Amino acid sequence: VFFAIVLYFRQVRERLKKDVEKMKLQDPNFRPALVILQVSTLIHTTSLIVWQKACSFIQAGQVIKSCLQVGDREDSNLYITMKLKVNENSSVHGLIVQLPLDSIHKIDTEKVTNAVAPEKDVDGLTSINAGKLSRGDLGDCFIPGTPNGCIQNNIMPFIVHCFLLLFLFVYLFIYLFGGIQVGKADILVVGIGKAEMVKGEWIKKGAVVIDCGINHIPGLFLSPFVQLNCLMSNLCSFFFLIRCICRSNSDIVISRSCVPKPIDCMAREVGLLSDEVELYGKTKAKVQLSIIKRLQSQPDGKYVVVTGITPTPLGEGKSTTTIGLVQALGAHMNLNVFACVRQPSQGPTFGIKGGAAGGGYSQVIPMEEFNLHLTGDIHAITAANNLVAAAIDARMFHESTQTDKALYNRLVPLSGGQRKFSPIQINRLKRLGIEKTDPSTLTEEEITRFARLNIDPSSVTWQRVLDTNDRFLRKITIGQSPTEKGYTREAQFDITVASEIMAVLALTSSLEDMRQRLAKMVVATSCSGQPITTEDLGVSGALTVLMKDAIKPNLMQTLEGTPVFVHAGPFANIAHGNSSILADKIALKLVGPDGFVVTEAGFGADIGMEKFFNIKCRYSGLRPHVVVLVATVRALKMHGGGPTVTAGMPLPKEYVEENLELLEKGCSNMRKQIENAQHFGVPVVVAVNAFKTDTDAELDLVCSMAKAAGAFDAVRCSHWAEGGAGAVALGQAVQRASGATSNFKFLYDLELPIADKIRIIAQKIYGADDIELLPEAQHKVELYTKLGFDNLPICMAKTHLSLSHEADKKGVPTGFILPIRDIRASVGAGFLFPLVGTMPTIPGLPTRPCFYDIDLDPETEEVNGLF
Amino acid sequence: VFFAIVLYFRQVRERLKKDVEKMKLQDPNFRPALVILQVSTLIHTTSLIVWQKACSFIQAGQVIKSCLQVGDREDSNLYITMKLKVNENSSVHGLIVQLPLDSIHKIDTEKVTNAVAPEKDVDGLTSINAGKLSRGDLGDCFIPGTPNGCIQNNIMPFIVHCFLLLFLFVYLFIYLFGGIQVGKADILVVGIGKAEMVKGEWIKKGAVVIDCGINHIPGLFLSPFVQLNCLMSNLCSFFFLIRCICRSNSDIVISRSCVPKPIDCMAREVGLLSDEVELYGKTKAKVQLSIIKRLQSQPDGKYVVVTGITPTPLGEGKSTTTIGLVQALGAHMNLNVFACVRQPSQGPTFGIKGGAAGGGYSQVIPMEEFNLHLTGDIHAITAANNLVAAAIDARMFHESTQTDKALYNRLVPLSGGQRKFSPIQINRLKRLGIEKTDPSTLTEEEITRFARLNIDPSSVTWQRVLDTNDRFLRKITIGQSPTEKGYTREAQFDITVASEIMAVLALTSSLEDMRQRLAKMVVATSCSGQPITTEDLGVSGALTVLMKDAIKPNLMQTLEGTPVFVHAGPFANIAHGNSSILADKIALKLVGPDGFVVTEAGFGADIGMEKFFNIKCRYSGLRPHVVVLVATVRALKMHGGGPTVTAGMPLPKEYVEENLELLEKGCSNMRKQIENAQHFGVPVVVAVNAFKTDTDAELDLVCSMAKAAGAFDAVRCSHWAEGGAGAVALGQAVQRASGATSNFKFLYDLELPIADKIRIIAQKIYGADDIELLPEAQHKVELYTKLGFDNLPICMAKTHLSLSHEADKKGVPTGFILPIRDIRASVGAGFLFPLVGTMPTIPGLPTRPCFYDIDLDPETEEVNGLF
Repeated sequence: VFFAIVLYFRQVRERLKKDVEKMKLQDPNFRPALVILQVSTLIHTTSLIVWQKACSFIQAGQVIKSCLQVGDREDSNLYITMKLKVNENSSVHGLIVQLPLDSIHKIDTEKVTNAVAPEKDVDGLTSINAGKLSRGDLGDCFIPGTPNGCIQNNIMPFIVHCFLLLFLFVYLFIYLFGGIQVGKADILVVGIGKAEMVKGEWIKKGAVVIDCGINHIPGLFLSPFVQLNCLMSNLCSFFFLIRCICRSNSDIVISRSCVPKPIDCMAREVGLLSDEVELYGKTKAKVQLSIIKRLQSQPDGKYVVVTGITPTPLGEGKSTTTIGLVQALGAHMNLNVFACVRQPSQGPTFGIKGGAAGGGYSQVIPMEEFNLHLTGDIHAITAANNLVAAAIDARMFHESTQTDKALYNRLVPLSGGQRKFSPIQINRLKRLGIEKTDPSTLTEEEITRFARLNIDPSSVTWQRVLDTNDRFLRKITIGQSPTEKGYTREAQFDITVASEIMAVLALTSSLEDMRQRLAKMVVATSCSGQPITTEDLGVSGALTVLMKDAIKPNLMQTLEGTPVFVHAGPFANIAHGNSSILADKIALKLVGPDGFVVTEAGFGADIGMEKFFNIKCRYSGLRPHVVVLVATVRALKMHGGGPTVTAGMPLPKEYVEENLELLEKGCSNMRKQIENAQHFGVPVVVAVNAFKTDTDAELDLVCSMAKAAGAFDAVRCSHWAEGGAGAVALGQAVQRASGATSNFKFLYDLELPIADKIRIIAQKIYGADDIELLPEAQHKVELYTKLGFDNLPICMAKTHLSLSHEADKKGVPTGFILPIRDIRASVGAGFLFPLVGTMPTIPGLPTRPCFYDIDLDPETEEVNGLF
Repeated sequence: VFFAIVLYFRQVRERLKKDVEKMKLQDPNFRPALVILQVSTLIHTTSLIVWQKACSFIQAGQVIKSCLQVGDREDSNLYITMKLKVNENSSVHGLIVQLPLDSIHKIDTEKVTNAVAPEKDVDGLTSINAGKLSRGDLGDCFIPGTPNGCIQNNIMPFIVHCFLLLFLFVYLFIYLFGGIQVGKADILVVGIGKAEMVKGEWIKKGAVVIDCGINHIPGLFLSPFVQLNCLMSNLCSFFFLIRCICRSNSDIVISRSCVPKPIDCMAREVGLLSDEVELYGKTKAKVQLSIIKRLQSQPDGKYVVVTGITPTPLGEGKSTTTIGLVQALGAHMNLNVFACVRQPSQGPTFGIKGGAAGGGYSQVIPMEEFNLHLTGDIHAITAANNLVAAAIDARMFHESTQTDKALYNRLVPLSGGQRKFSPIQINRLKRLGIEKTDPSTLTEEEITRFARLNIDPSSVTWQRVLDTNDRFLRKITIGQSPTEKGYTREAQFDITVASEIMAVLALTSSLEDMRQRLAKMVVATSCSGQPITTEDLGVSGALTVLMKDAIKPNLMQTLEGTPVFVHAGPFANIAHGNSSILADKIALKLVGPDGFVVTEAGFGADIGMEKFFNIKCRYSGLRPHVVVLVATVRALKMHGGGPTVTAGMPLPKEYVEENLELLEKGCSNMRKQIENAQHFGVPVVVAVNAFKTDTDAELDLVCSMAKAAGAFDAVRCSHWAEGGAGAVALGQAVQRASGATSNFKFLYDLELPIADKIRIIAQKIYGADDIELLPEAQHKVELYTKLGFDNLPICMAKTHLSLSHEADKKGVPTGFILPIRDIRASVGAGFLFPLVGTMPTIPGLPTRPCFYDIDLDPETEEVNGLF
């Protein structure tokens, strides 16, 4: 019998060798590969000899062994590894999963077994292979070893005979001699059908075990063994016959942080259906708006906004805290969570180092995808914005070179013998009060009114945009080519995120709503003072078409595998600096009533949070449960009178040594910002973002000062260094605060006059004595009131580095009058933005931009030097 | 027994009602839906009464019936319908597929049955459900009716008893009375286990048939019947219990042209593995370059290039012919095919009507995706191109305001107490001949040479780009903001597809090659005449990072479901106007040795084809098998002396009436273009793209003239009106021609002097007597020769509307001298482009751009008016 087995071994080996050679003839690069995935909490040592023996069967092929440590709680890590590393990996042809026997593992063996792609299931254990076998569909499935051996009787009847004899023999053997005799065997054939009968410790080190079990009893042996399954007919080139299982120390421990979940898995995990998800590669997906309808009766989750005290120019870690908090709530407290963050502009990514993906162990991954094109939303805005700009100048040009009649004949051209208005043109006619649909019936006066927009070139407020830090486009003269016949004009480029279309994207609630907002954007005024909209230019429908994909939120994940929506990133000064309403709304439905959605508001609480409440929440109708106010010892010391902090320069010693005096003084800014949040009636949790130079005394002082100032709670956190684990205390405080009574109210009523609304913000939030409307602003107040734009909310364009309008006034400035230089209107987005000082709208590149460090490794396709 | 059944019916009905109500409590919008997919070649009539009876069981739910007609050949339509309409449709909860019994159908029933998503397989027939059942895993699968009835014995023992009694009864009944008695029954219970025993014609119209068979015998009844399966425990809200099958006339016949294949299905069909594909939504995907390595030993398919005679300004249908030809080869001749086409610029899409997706029944679908953002490749080029532009101006600005030492200290900043060169800076040092890596060891002279690029502002050839028709950016002055301290400069914007980066994308062969090409692009010269590259600016790595996704070809499909690669779309005059080498290479591997790859070259054969051979084929190493030359009667008449053809104006009568004289005369242009193709030694097939006004005599004349001129064959085609069916003759001619001997050779040798290469093209292809180098061109010849750029291929920038440099010279102009105004170098892309006349590089918008017609339906999300 022993001899027969050795013979059989050899035959199988020869046959395998020939099969592999045959495949190599077809494809010289073919290299069969089998993955053995050992799932365990304990990793056993093993002798390498067995491993090598197993490998000898594979010949030219390769066996990849992976050890995966699974924690106690239900974990999708395993499925992801299987999907990514095997099922979707074309260079792997077979997978064997070895599950632990220990009952302490709460692994759903059925689920794991079925996660193996049927075409790679060389064990033949998945339901689909078992199903085919049970229905006799043998031509198209993998058959487990023993039944296959029986089927192949005609090929090797003698061997099978021997096998059957041997079974009885071994069975008896074990009953009689237990482990004693088994321990002597070099080759051990097992097919008893009873789990835990053969103990691992019985088996001699280096022995080969032939497992003939029909029953799959994974993890039976604690010592190394090799299992040989019968050869299958060569149905396809993926077939892989030798089953080798070997426990070993593995260098590769797949950690959660290294394997981003495939985004389709993430989508399923958060409850999205496959027809609601549009994948963009393996790590990003867009979510269709149809989900809002499907989940309309689902109660919303808790809504948390993260804001900060007045920051240093270095930033105080709001994004990092947002990500750390959702990691704590999701990965550590097992709650349903979503982070909703802004998409960063690509311009600064290549300028001065720094991304918006969070930092340290609290990040959105993969960060190169997050910081570069993402799914093209900002590019779509660039295209849409610049189409409007081109349409404005082209229209002025064509109007200046044509008569009314010629203009009309071109705008409403003869086609098939008749003229017809397009629906967009009928919209314009309606706004002009001309209730006609037949182009031939317009009077001459109506033709003039319809065809001639009569744009005042000096009134054009619509600027071109690029998502590049190109300072030389801050002020330009356009139209200097002879083809434009001397109609030159001064213009400028802004960074794309400053486009009104970005603000529209962030504030819209549906496709229909976006269509309307995009149509009513005012780009200029006519010579007679009438506002000119994108609908007047005829471009509103095209804008909607260009933005039809951008409106769908982008799904990504944090380093700890919790879900993130990345959607919209409007400028935080001339716009409202908050991510999209749609993403927040969808996330609130997806997390359900006990879940949390954490969203971030740009800049300090005086700007981002105020706009979050008065603009975003007003349009969304959503009511936040908790405000998280991020404070740092560094920024508070600065407010206490510490020296100036400059990006790129070493920090003065005040910031790296304990200084309780400066700190205590600086807490005034935190107190004021807590008060600002309380104006809206929402409980505040202060998150003290700890740096390694902060002392315990300093951190304790900030916490106690915060509580004294009326914060619901104040906790220190270390999510940058520790990930979600460092923000669990914050998570618990937020969870408690979300149960507290909240009495939300807006700061001002929309019906108030423009100046009153500005004054309320200046006095209550900034602490100003009053406001001063400079002449241009005064003129705009009158103009906008006349045009009916006066009941829009206010979006202050003020420095974020001080509560006042002067960036160098730290702490809590008092006794100042806030000067309003000018007021602009974003009618489509739906706000007026008073300008306090001048706002740069396109950054420049420094002498050594960070692109010097950025490169792509052509071999691994990895992005280097981005952060 | 009859009474028991009625009772049972009622009970099931009540229970169902309650279950649905319970689900509705959780979600008021829940509406159970069952799809019954009837696959058949014959559609039978039925009484609606039965249908209504069936529906009464569903109560609040809905039953969707679909009829799918399947042709004789193996057809993926069915699977796609199932996947799209049911498996991935969250509003459908169950699917029953009814397959035809007729043996004439060669449908793989196993495959179809298993295409049903297991969680919607209410019949319990998929392998996965069968497998679970066979392994006793009852908690998580659908169980077919009868076994389920037995399992539920404890609930309804009496009924099951009755059923069993009834089985015997009916069995006897049929044996005794055949169809006679069965025909009287209102309710008929069948569970015989033998197919075709109960004949459809036996059954009374309107009768209810209860099918208790364990065996699934689909299509057994030719009359309507209703099958009732047992109630399952309510495991999940998708459960659906009533099985209703009804044959009926259906209004909805799902045609191939209406249902685009999900792109992941398409990817599998063409042999791509799932880890080689990155989905971008449901209709577009990117293909990873790793496939080149996997298929390196696979022989290439046949390579066909589509070009045309000198066109009218309306275009003669090259794109349409490309798509029509692959539809013919693929969908009608059952060959493996791929079309490789250019991605169109988005600018003209909103300007003057017309897309590049083909036309009529020969199109790439969905065309709005094709013509708008696609997967963002052009946007990536815009971002990369403008980063270079910003870097040039910022560098000149910083150099002008800083000393050498200050510049150096900023470029190589102190970090952690020491200075370090980035790898990109070391590359620059090497090119300067400074073999040092320690920043502290550079001499003062070396510091100056390294830190100061000394760009001559008047030498900057790199322009900013936008993918918008913005004529006012043709010539601008930049840097007018006070922050730029008066360093203003004249500049211009080009359309993005004119960027050298687009040409690089089209000509690159790998990521590593693209990295090198992007690094050696020359953007200006220094004051001392040295070329300044993107690597000198330090931006080359960032460009590669920005382009890392754009390098992957985009997979789409034609209207007839054949695969298309859409990749790169360089300008056809200042660049070479051909789609990417990478797409062609991958496609040639995927189709295999008997397959065909059809690629299109921009403009007429004198431009697009000449560049295809001399530039694209030179870099790719690929050798074409066939040239397809598209000719139209319209264009040939124009060359014969017909009146001017203008876009947007009605065609003169010469073009819509038969005129053999004009036509015959105009065939001279076709003859010359055939000759041009023969210069390269490749067989030519002329495709006469027939318009409805063309007469048979005219079309015959063109074909015979083409053959007389040496074409391998000439066929008329009507793919615009008929799709692939209209190009089968062309497909057959191409297939024959691909077997003909081809003796490919280049037109000129790269080692020749620049002027000689230009002269060869001008004389052999255009028919010029000679060329004249104007002073600027003469200067560039000397400069480029000195800089070592003289051995690059030549990319002529000439009008496409004439063989000569004058657009109004039709037919075959002779006796002219081709004037070369200037020569530019695209060193990264790898060609010199002599300018013959002035080339507009950014189009403008007309008075009535086509965006007036474009809009999005917010309900259906459909794009209207795009074409």
